[in-house]
Amino acid sequence: MASIDERCVSTIRFLAVDQVEKAKSGHPGMPLGAAPMAYVLWDRFLRFDATNPKWPNRDRFILSAGHGSALLYALLHLYGYGISIEDLKRFRQWGSKTPGHPEYGEVPGVEATTGPLGQGFAMGVGMAIAEAHLAAVYNRDGFPLVDGTIYAIVSDGDLMEGIASEAASLAGHLKLGKLVYLYDDNHISIEGSTELAFGEDVGARFAAYGWHVQKVSDSEDLGLIESAIGAAKAETDRPSLIMVRTHIGFGSPKKDSAKAHGEPLGAEAMKATREELGWPADKTFYVPDDVYNHAKLAQEKGALARASWDKLLKGYEEAYPDNARWFKAAVAGELPSGWEKSLPVFKPADGAMATRAASGKVLNALAPAVTNLIGGSADLGPSNNTALKDSGDFSAKDRAGRNIHFGVREHAMAAAVNGMALYGGVLPFGATFLVFSDYMRPSLRLAALMQTHSIFIFTHDSIAVGEDGPTHQPVDQLPSLRSIPGFTVFRPADANETAIAWRCAIEAKGPVALVLTRQNLSVLDASAFPIAEGVPKGGYILAEAEGGKPRAVIAASGSEVHLAISARTILAAEGAQVRVVSVPCRELFTEQPKAYRDSVIPPGLPVLAVEMASPMGWRDYLGARAEVMGINRFGASAPGPEVVEKLGFTAEAVAARLRALL
Amino acid sequence: MASIDERCVSTIRFLAVDQVEKAKSGHPGMPLGAAPMAYVLWDRFLRFDATNPKWPNRDRFILSAGHGSALLYALLHLYGYGISIEDLKRFRQWGSKTPGHPEYGEVPGVEATTGPLGQGFAMGVGMAIAEAHLAAVYNRDGFPLVDGTIYAIVSDGDLMEGIASEAASLAGHLKLGKLVYLYDDNHISIEGSTELAFGEDVGARFAAYGWHVQKVSDSEDLGLIESAIGAAKAETDRPSLIMVRTHIGFGSPKKDSAKAHGEPLGAEAMKATREELGWPADKTFYVPDDVYNHAKLAQEKGALARASWDKLLKGYEEAYPDNARWFKAAVAGELPSGWEKSLPVFKPADGAMATRAASGKVLNALAPAVTNLIGGSADLGPSNNTALKDSGDFSAKDRAGRNIHFGVREHAMAAAVNGMALYGGVLPFGATFLVFSDYMRPSLRLAALMQTHSIFIFTHDSIAVGEDGPTHQPVDQLPSLRSIPGFTVFRPADANETAIAWRCAIEAKGPVALVLTRQNLSVLDASAFPIAEGVPKGGYILAEAEGGKPRAVIAASGSEVHLAISARTILAAEGAQVRVVSVPCRELFTEQPKAYRDSVIPPGLPVLAVEMASPMGWRDYLGARAEVMGINRFGASAPGPEVVEKLGFTAEAVAARLRALL
Repeated sequence: MASIDERCVSTIRFLAVDQVEKAKSGHPGMPLGAAPMAYVLWDRFLRFDATNPKWPNRDRFILSAGHGSALLYALLHLYGYGISIEDLKRFRQWGSKTPGHPEYGEVPGVEATTGPLGQGFAMGVGMAIAEAHLAAVYNRDGFPLVDGTIYAIVSDGDLMEGIASEAASLAGHLKLGKLVYLYDDNHISIEGSTELAFGEDVGARFAAYGWHVQKVSDSEDLGLIESAIGAAKAETDRPSLIMVRTHIGFGSPKKDSAKAHGEPLGAEAMKATREELGWPADKTFYVPDDVYNHAKLAQEKGALARASWDKLLKGYEEAYPDNARWFKAAVAGELPSGWEKSLPVFKPADGAMATRAASGKVLNALAPAVTNLIGGSADLGPSNNTALKDSGDFSAKDRAGRNIHFGVREHAMAAAVNGMALYGGVLPFGATFLVFSDYMRPSLRLAALMQTHSIFIFTHDSIAVGEDGPTHQPVDQLPSLRSIPGFTVFRPADANETAIAWRCAIEAKGPVALVLTRQNLSVLDASAFPIAEGVPKGGYILAEAEGGKPRAVIAASGSEVHLAISARTILAAEGAQVRVVSVPCRELFTEQPKAYRDSVIPPGLPVLAVEMASPMGWRDYLGARAEVMGINRFGASAPGPEVVEKLGFTAEAVAARLRALL
Repeated sequence: MASIDERCVSTIRFLAVDQVEKAKSGHPGMPLGAAPMAYVLWDRFLRFDATNPKWPNRDRFILSAGHGSALLYALLHLYGYGISIEDLKRFRQWGSKTPGHPEYGEVPGVEATTGPLGQGFAMGVGMAIAEAHLAAVYNRDGFPLVDGTIYAIVSDGDLMEGIASEAASLAGHLKLGKLVYLYDDNHISIEGSTELAFGEDVGARFAAYGWHVQKVSDSEDLGLIESAIGAAKAETDRPSLIMVRTHIGFGSPKKDSAKAHGEPLGAEAMKATREELGWPADKTFYVPDDVYNHAKLAQEKGALARASWDKLLKGYEEAYPDNARWFKAAVAGELPSGWEKSLPVFKPADGAMATRAASGKVLNALAPAVTNLIGGSADLGPSNNTALKDSGDFSAKDRAGRNIHFGVREHAMAAAVNGMALYGGVLPFGATFLVFSDYMRPSLRLAALMQTHSIFIFTHDSIAVGEDGPTHQPVDQLPSLRSIPGFTVFRPADANETAIAWRCAIEAKGPVALVLTRQNLSVLDASAFPIAEGVPKGGYILAEAEGGKPRAVIAASGSEVHLAISARTILAAEGAQVRVVSVPCRELFTEQPKAYRDSVIPPGLPVLAVEMASPMGWRDYLGARAEVMGINRFGASAPGPEVVEKLGFTAEAVAARLRALL
């Protein structure tokens, strides 16, 4: 009879392929190849408590090769995460706990939504940053409160993606020793052998990034895998890549073939696989009792670890009561009471100020109160105004630093921010120019899908960027970001709207982008305008028509609000009273009750939307009758004010458009 | 007195910083540091004919570090590209030939628009693919008609970007020996020393990709640079990276400091720099006569090379008249006459067919006629239906192959497609799932900005993807792509619309995306519906209301056209006649004369748009009164038909929405 280890591996393999077979859809090859390493990891290393899947000091396991989801669900079933055999039978069905790719929030034990390749790899790097930072901030002698390892299984596809290269380079640079990645090195991608497109020396590449690289020649040799993971854990100065030579579709007639990748094996091949691996021919979704019993040992070990950690936390609470309180609040995602009192109020007398500059002031005002705010820029810190003064740089030498230098790696930055948010305990942000949000889009979308509390700062938000020209002037980015479901975009009109937008961002449950100007804008008087109440509603009456009887409405966001105010003045002189509505956040405005929206934009009135961006979508927000002044071309290189004027964004032009409507 | 070489280098340096100083905007540090290597390259290696900047067999030079544009403009002035001193004085001004970042099409001698980092690096890889392919197809013994080298200057920022990693791995795999990249290794990025974020061993990384790596320790030693470029050219089996240890802001007081990067040096520092480098204190935009004369030598050498190539081409025309004709047509971007006759017409009797499958058939029908069609997929060929049968794989061993295996590298694929289009002579395409167009967005935007003839195939175009779930179901990608100015998106409704969309894509002048279904759709009868005339207009009356008197209009794209047709039938039975308008391309529809648009969507009628995507923007296209059935959430994992139904896309639901409008 096979050993219990072998029986456990076979159970995982067949639980996985049975799901695929039942669903008539999915990816059997990866689970068949990667089951042994997954088993060794879960059986002997991964610290988890299935009864408390959110235990803060658990290890994290990411299946970056998310198409192998059936493998993960098999593990979650076996190790007590409340995924039942019935759940497995509903693989890839509507409303099931076992969707096609692992979905964070839908399934306990899924640490990150994966499937788009490279994302899991890079989110793990963010988790390792969070772990290292929290450990530095909270751990005390004898109290290793935060001490987790971030494991992942990554695939050829992950390693070909640029985002993984960026993240690997960053992780090596930061010496994130708690990362242990198992590379499912199966030599097969969808189009065939990796020899078709992937001839690089992966091990040498990762060594060049500063990783600790090991090779395991035989994926069926559990001892070799165990030694390698042990050595990787022991190496705390470098992230570890363990290259395991696996065989896609192991045990099946489609072994080592792209045919094993993305479709069910089929009845014939399933039969042959059962024979080959010595598994009962007549049983599907089969878990032998001894396998269940063996899997319980790992669960019990985990529960003990958690109980021991609970004790540790108790001791910590006695020794460091303040720290303990802060730690628990941070991990629970709670904000310190009264934090919002640190928000600055700006005065018109402060002089004109770019919203990026205001954002920098807000960030620095918040940082002492919201101590778990951590982040940085993709090498544009001085332009994005993201530096947290006196907060140190997060580096290999200083894990307590709160300024992260992500390098020119926008995509990995976004994923790392998501990973930090997923790890918990920190409130992460990342920044770049708005036009380069394009580089991050797959991760922004995942943030929205997972509803992570990720904050993105996008400065240089329009053609007013000026001289740098069309490559640096966003036009199409606003509609692109706004089209992502569950993603909230703020484009504040001045320093005070920026402060309130930051308040909303800090309080948000999902991802938020702050879209900020490069150029100076005058500061609106917060005592005269209802900014504090208005911004959280997404749109509000900033300046009522004189006499309170508007004949038309100008709606604008960001810097164009100032154009709207000027146009209002021009028209008022002509006896045409118009209302100025500031719309810092279309998403929030849409969520308001219809009565409110209609009170802001009365259905009977003409309305003109003004925004220096693609006009796409404004009519969806302001009603079908809205006219829109937008930009349907790329920008141009010239001083900002000249570009703005040449493209028609003057107070007089706004007034003229409105006159035509009246 | 300084040598002529030194004087040339100084001229280039000061022409560059004088531009920045005059514009009060720009990047002086990079040109000061990189001028020597740029000079050696242009003086001694780069094969160009400034009087004929589009000479097909020229070498290509890409300034991937596009922020150093002033350096490039200085070179273009010196080497006779018709950039005058006046042009240099108008650096970064409205309508000038010297915009903030190099813009392809705006400036002769600019081979690619750069500035967004990593893009130039990856476009060069595409150029090298095109060069290798054309050489294999056209060169004959004694007739090296195509024999160019692709040079680039790349920066730290380029090398940190994931897209460059992807492209470097692909280039190494394909052994693109004609690539010679000079790395401006100045140890400084915007936030400070590269030690902040970029500690990897770049040379070892590139060696791992299969590149030939050299180091030049002193960027001022022109002999060292010359030897290295010579060795790189001699190495034809591997792409070459020459790591030149440069000093940002060389010669200025801001040398080796991030302060030299992105703002003018200022009068003080300019003065000091002139002193340090021995340049006249009182002269700006100064080119000594002997420098002009020396630069003429390289121009004359280039003109001779071109004349010699013209002779070669003459001989080739005599020896291989057919080849010569094809070559000249391909290079001129002309299509073979009658090519469109190869477009298939599909019959309803052929049975239901996914538009991705139809696209595969069209591609294979076109391939023998349009022989310069070349491309592939980011490892999804079997799903994207992109394989060109009997056309071989483009590989290190077979340069004539037309199927490119890009690997799981969507971003580099898109940039490489752009680079191939820029090189000319080929008509390139790249493919992936629509949802993963997100990974390519910066390159798609550049394609639109440059108006390259790049074709992108995006299959699996909606929630109907089914089981793979929300990570694989596009919702937000259509508005995102449509918001890019100058980017044309087709979403055909069946096999025949797909064929016509392909015709439009082949005939287009700029970039085109074909958005295609995973699921089968019935084939519309091309003899009964005006598909061939309609699709090129972007929107057309597919099925008129019975009796010709519509009471409402349903507009739809792609698979939803079939829902619209079914809803029309349901309503007809109730006596409500509706017109079905197919809108395969919103961009082209918008370009039609108003009279045509009004004839298709009569202003007086209610109109319902139906598309399984974010509804953003439909009202901009169909008129303000349009109702839209779209999707404002992410999809879900379940069989495709179930997801579609659960999210409300049934013929009955469409009919109900329309009933409410009538």
